[in-house]
Amino acid sequence: MLESTLRKIKSVNKKTALKSIERVDNLVKPKGSLGMLEEIVVKLSAIQNTKFPKISNKEIIVFASDHGIFEEGVAITPREVTLIQAENMILGVTGVCALAKNANSKVIVVDVGIDADVKNNKIINKKIRKGTSNFTKGPAMSREEAIRSIEIGIEIANSRIDLGADILGTGEMGIGNTTPSSAILSVIGGYKPSEVTGIGANLPLERLEKKIDVIDKGIKFNKPNKNDPIDVLSKVGGFEIGAMAGAMIGGASRGVPVIVDGFISSAAALIAIKLEPKVKDYLFASHFSKEKGAFLASKELGLKTPLHLDLRLGEGTGAAIMFSIIEFALAMNNNMVTFDEGGFKL
Amino acid sequence: MLESTLRKIKSVNKKTALKSIERVDNLVKPKGSLGMLEEIVVKLSAIQNTKFPKISNKEIIVFASDHGIFEEGVAITPREVTLIQAENMILGVTGVCALAKNANSKVIVVDVGIDADVKNNKIINKKIRKGTSNFTKGPAMSREEAIRSIEIGIEIANSRIDLGADILGTGEMGIGNTTPSSAILSVIGGYKPSEVTGIGANLPLERLEKKIDVIDKGIKFNKPNKNDPIDVLSKVGGFEIGAMAGAMIGGASRGVPVIVDGFISSAAALIAIKLEPKVKDYLFASHFSKEKGAFLASKELGLKTPLHLDLRLGEGTGAAIMFSIIEFALAMNNNMVTFDEGGFKL
Repeated sequence: MLESTLRKIKSVNKKTALKSIERVDNLVKPKGSLGMLEEIVVKLSAIQNTKFPKISNKEIIVFASDHGIFEEGVAITPREVTLIQAENMILGVTGVCALAKNANSKVIVVDVGIDADVKNNKIINKKIRKGTSNFTKGPAMSREEAIRSIEIGIEIANSRIDLGADILGTGEMGIGNTTPSSAILSVIGGYKPSEVTGIGANLPLERLEKKIDVIDKGIKFNKPNKNDPIDVLSKVGGFEIGAMAGAMIGGASRGVPVIVDGFISSAAALIAIKLEPKVKDYLFASHFSKEKGAFLASKELGLKTPLHLDLRLGEGTGAAIMFSIIEFALAMNNNMVTFDEGGFKL
Repeated sequence: MLESTLRKIKSVNKKTALKSIERVDNLVKPKGSLGMLEEIVVKLSAIQNTKFPKISNKEIIVFASDHGIFEEGVAITPREVTLIQAENMILGVTGVCALAKNANSKVIVVDVGIDADVKNNKIINKKIRKGTSNFTKGPAMSREEAIRSIEIGIEIANSRIDLGADILGTGEMGIGNTTPSSAILSVIGGYKPSEVTGIGANLPLERLEKKIDVIDKGIKFNKPNKNDPIDVLSKVGGFEIGAMAGAMIGGASRGVPVIVDGFISSAAALIAIKLEPKVKDYLFASHFSKEKGAFLASKELGLKTPLHLDLRLGEGTGAAIMFSIIEFALAMNNNMVTFDEGGFKL
């Protein structure tokens, strides 16, 4: 199913992009002066194959999962918080819910590996198992599980698009999940773990060295093949990271744009793009995370991050705000007149 | 009137800021993880003296004026465009109008010095005269005119606040106005004109040297006193820059927050803060402009710019988007629960 979905991803429409550029250049402003707002319109025009793209139904999909690597002491937040916050997502009181409400976006919560028996039936149950394995002692998951995590993301994206979603944001909840994200970036980008590992959710600085060692150990022990993203995901990744990559692939396969959130979402995007480079043309980055590896993650992705808000919460919070930035870009395109329409030249 | 308004500006409430920090730190997220959104809430709490600040009536005030320095060839856009775009503001088809509409914000247009007989009675007439003088040959305006331009800004801010505005954005329209802005930044910040002068609205690079020379000449000829902001404004400034500074001062004097837009607005903010440092506590920066001097302007102001959209249009476009960022910050504060309310600890 993953293979057939990857094959379904079409190139975006370059001719429409050129027509969009022509229109945007002719709006009553100096050429290029609305910067990324212009680029967003052009990119979305190419995706939707129209000079007047629009978005109506915004949804953030939050994939929640636990991590075996937690037992190595890479996070200070109790592991139970993955479940508690997944339930709080349903109550609408988490960071992403607070911001998504303001962006008029839904939030969907999917359990792909919470280490608990989840009772709340509003959390979509796609549990692979109760958390990944500790990757310092073996792979985080099997190759089959890695593929399954991506396919879950594709399935969920498909079902949400079937129900009307026309833009997706990727979010996550998983205590310990900056560790696999740094590991993925380290392997795929070829960086030392020390270059891409930060404090996540307020890890005390004196424990950062340990976190870096854990990642280093995991990579050395498992020897993930950087050219095989499934191998990387299975050996040092996480279920929610695979699912986020799947949501990106699923969105792209349906011609639907997907917002990359912060650091963890960027690691997922690296997996997705490595599986199929065309996915990138459907992705919008959102914020430049305060997490240490953000700069190199952003560099590897090659997508601009317009929001510099020093966010480092994850959950999809940056994606929620990015919906609004895209709406500003569309407002520029829809509400401004061209020089011809305005009857003058600059 | 300027003096009495400056005296009216109160310190923001530091006790309320501390209470706001306590609340924001207790929302269900790792401390500090929502970065600038948290800082925005705390700053607004201090301004409005409540842990639950809110904004309801957003307005962007666009001050339009022409510049004598235009005749030195510092811009490629025809001078008539100041009037044309002021009129387009009323039609709602300019960049700032397109974005303000999306932010549910009004746009008010004020003529402080358009070089034409303005017929449109929806443009508020506060014309000082038809454009400043060429500041390579003498001061851009008299000291009285400089004070008058600031007082116009104060008057307009007061009248809009009387009508219900509870947050103001500053915008401008004035062909050639990056030149006086660079000049102001050069004098107040002590930078060489070459360090703070960019291409504005697509000035060809081969003419940039001339623009820098013009600024250099103007400063050397007029010798503005960097410690006297009125002197700087009168000698190398612009009417709309003075009026924007006035709107900031007026907002602060009424306890109303004001958004700084981009480069020109930052030059105005430098004047306002130099007149009364407390004004800064009422100002929010918005975007990091693509115009060359933006970095140093931002450094001088000492206000963080969350939006990195490569905008360089001015008009108030960044301010319009910033309204939304502030609303996301308020949504965080209003929609999230605290750990006590959520019944758990991280």
